[in-house]
Amino acid sequence: MIDIEQANRTTVERMMEARPVLIGVGRARDVIPGMRDNLLLHAGPPVTWERMAGPMKGAAVGSLILEGKAQGWDDAEALIKSGAIEFEPCHHHSAVGPMAGLISPSMMVYIVENQTQGNRAYSGINEGRGKVLRMGAYSEEVLARMRWLNDVLAPVVNDALKLCGGIDIRSLLGQALHMGDDGHNRLSAASLLFLKSLDPYIVKTAPNPDVASDILRTLGDNALAILNPVMAACKTMVDAGHNVEGSTIVTVMARNGTDFGIRVSGLGDQWFTAPAGMVKALYFPGFTEKDANPDIGDSTITETAGIGGFAMASAPAIVTFIGGHAKDAVNTTLDMYEITYAEHKFFTMPPLDFRGTPTGIDIRKVVEKGIPPRVNTGVAHKDPGVGQVGAGVVSAPMKVFEDALVAYAEKYGY
Amino acid sequence: MIDIEQANRTTVERMMEARPVLIGVGRARDVIPGMRDNLLLHAGPPVTWERMAGPMKGAAVGSLILEGKAQGWDDAEALIKSGAIEFEPCHHHSAVGPMAGLISPSMMVYIVENQTQGNRAYSGINEGRGKVLRMGAYSEEVLARMRWLNDVLAPVVNDALKLCGGIDIRSLLGQALHMGDDGHNRLSAASLLFLKSLDPYIVKTAPNPDVASDILRTLGDNALAILNPVMAACKTMVDAGHNVEGSTIVTVMARNGTDFGIRVSGLGDQWFTAPAGMVKALYFPGFTEKDANPDIGDSTITETAGIGGFAMASAPAIVTFIGGHAKDAVNTTLDMYEITYAEHKFFTMPPLDFRGTPTGIDIRKVVEKGIPPRVNTGVAHKDPGVGQVGAGVVSAPMKVFEDALVAYAEKYGY
Repeated sequence: MIDIEQANRTTVERMMEARPVLIGVGRARDVIPGMRDNLLLHAGPPVTWERMAGPMKGAAVGSLILEGKAQGWDDAEALIKSGAIEFEPCHHHSAVGPMAGLISPSMMVYIVENQTQGNRAYSGINEGRGKVLRMGAYSEEVLARMRWLNDVLAPVVNDALKLCGGIDIRSLLGQALHMGDDGHNRLSAASLLFLKSLDPYIVKTAPNPDVASDILRTLGDNALAILNPVMAACKTMVDAGHNVEGSTIVTVMARNGTDFGIRVSGLGDQWFTAPAGMVKALYFPGFTEKDANPDIGDSTITETAGIGGFAMASAPAIVTFIGGHAKDAVNTTLDMYEITYAEHKFFTMPPLDFRGTPTGIDIRKVVEKGIPPRVNTGVAHKDPGVGQVGAGVVSAPMKVFEDALVAYAEKYGY
Repeated sequence: MIDIEQANRTTVERMMEARPVLIGVGRARDVIPGMRDNLLLHAGPPVTWERMAGPMKGAAVGSLILEGKAQGWDDAEALIKSGAIEFEPCHHHSAVGPMAGLISPSMMVYIVENQTQGNRAYSGINEGRGKVLRMGAYSEEVLARMRWLNDVLAPVVNDALKLCGGIDIRSLLGQALHMGDDGHNRLSAASLLFLKSLDPYIVKTAPNPDVASDILRTLGDNALAILNPVMAACKTMVDAGHNVEGSTIVTVMARNGTDFGIRVSGLGDQWFTAPAGMVKALYFPGFTEKDANPDIGDSTITETAGIGGFAMASAPAIVTFIGGHAKDAVNTTLDMYEITYAEHKFFTMPPLDFRGTPTGIDIRKVVEKGIPPRVNTGVAHKDPGVGQVGAGVVSAPMKVFEDALVAYAEKYGY
């Protein structure tokens, strides 16, 4: 007889005790397990080129141009259709990526090591706002920025990380939640803490003051500079809690722009998927809901680890990004306590008198209460090549939790 | 017949429209109007050596050692008692200083220019925490740090400020209030925004990467690095609203550790004073209320300008510093609306759905409602040479507002 409570306690305890430290930056083909020359990693559960969302296709084409395997859309698509290129989820390789989440072999990725359990996770360099690869844009300007990030910024940041001995991301997030961040869509404070941790070292590892200056400005002006290391940190946390026999705790939520998928600690590597939802969004000038791609990206790993939308009570200013009132932010967090197992030991929220964030989504509670996990997210244009069109809120589809609960009952005989 | 409402509207409008920009760092004797070789500026209203609080005496002695006019306490005191040294309030020289607030002629000071009305204000370089001159410590270690700040950090920061064209402190504070700062005792986010604004330039203006690294670490590790420029910025705001005929708005609140003093817009340069209160504080290990000096410092210029204790609703995490619950922080802000004239146009608070901070203390409302302005503050040891012993909350003494109201009635015939 499985003791579900004990299993869930173990899962969540492992997630919270994980201590992810950003230790370096390396080339995907050198550091990501199973990465190979003809492989593109993408956000969310598995998806074929035929069913792939526009922004992910755009990012894939951009990646192949970056890799020198294509000149533009037509030969990239031909190459893909020839079967020469394989697609696999980031999540199958201990990696995560925001929005399209494309990681190609020559891209530089952050390396986060969980110093409690020893596992690692990986995520690319954040490009900033506007027309960016992760939103499906792939113009020469977009690719030039990616090349600069990979070739100039990444090696300097890697050397700086070695020099400073790494950055404790759990501690950094704990501070940021006391500075108005939610840990997912609002990372203004966390990104500045990241800059502050690195800048005394970047001045020493940069080849000259001009390059140092460019790198510091690039990091400082990007309020999501830390998003990718945070996502990789969350990935190490949830991976630490994965594969606990009998546990009903969700260890992955991820979207590929076509499907929303989850994995559950006690159900191994099986994906439970349903169509990705449309985001209730504030649109940038000139765009409407008709332009929007459905929900996309691995960044829901933050909510899976107990921050992001679940910690919105800490981040009332986020309503300028997604709409609504400060009270809505608090109520979202209060709702998430209904479907989670624990209150986080290290992530606390000052507006709730330092109550821990709701942590460890329990598929039983989601189904029983009828409350789906809440997600805040950016919105990409549905067509390749455009980029971000807005930001807003969306709920995870109930079907994935219902299906997972059925599978759990079958596996464990309930 | 004076139209008090119109006068107060003018005062507060001028305060809010002031746009303070940090434009440089210069030597006090070169930039502060009326500064002279035998003059020491101090916090609060005027005070003699005989009545001077311990921490201010300690800072004065330290300043004279820094200036090369004394070797230690005894000859510094002898020099002061000989009449060779003069003391005047910072506020008489468009300057402000936290805690003891000592500014001596050779110290480097931030220069803030209000680009709306053109007036300037000045404040020294923040030394960080622990044993520091502003808390009354004056050991060789304290003075060595001051020398490094003045001789190494200040010129590099000055050059960086010239290169970047200055830093808009009003805009920076507006962002920081959305990142959990109150603008006075909690300036963690504001100090990081300051660092972010400067670091791409500091790497270019520092003589070499090692010095750049030291300066960036010093600024980045000091969560109050921006306090002094913020205070000078607030000083330019309130000065812009000073001397409006018939206005009952407070334009200075300041403490010298012995007396608490205010000035009122419609009452010129007259000080209204009363004994400084004892702070209800959380003490550092090893210290108790018996060690505490009464309330001290010019930093109440922040509350006078509509931030600090008045904006506590934005900064629930501040209760870790001063004690209490998140709700107390919100209630403090709500109380301050009772005694202020306006809601700030540029300083807004996300937890109150972006309501403007309570701005412009009206002496009539303070007396009528019986609600004194609320101040959060650090606490210095009462003896010279020790330093900080805690932090907490204190209310301004009602007597200064009552006396000011009597003076107003006499002057304007009410």
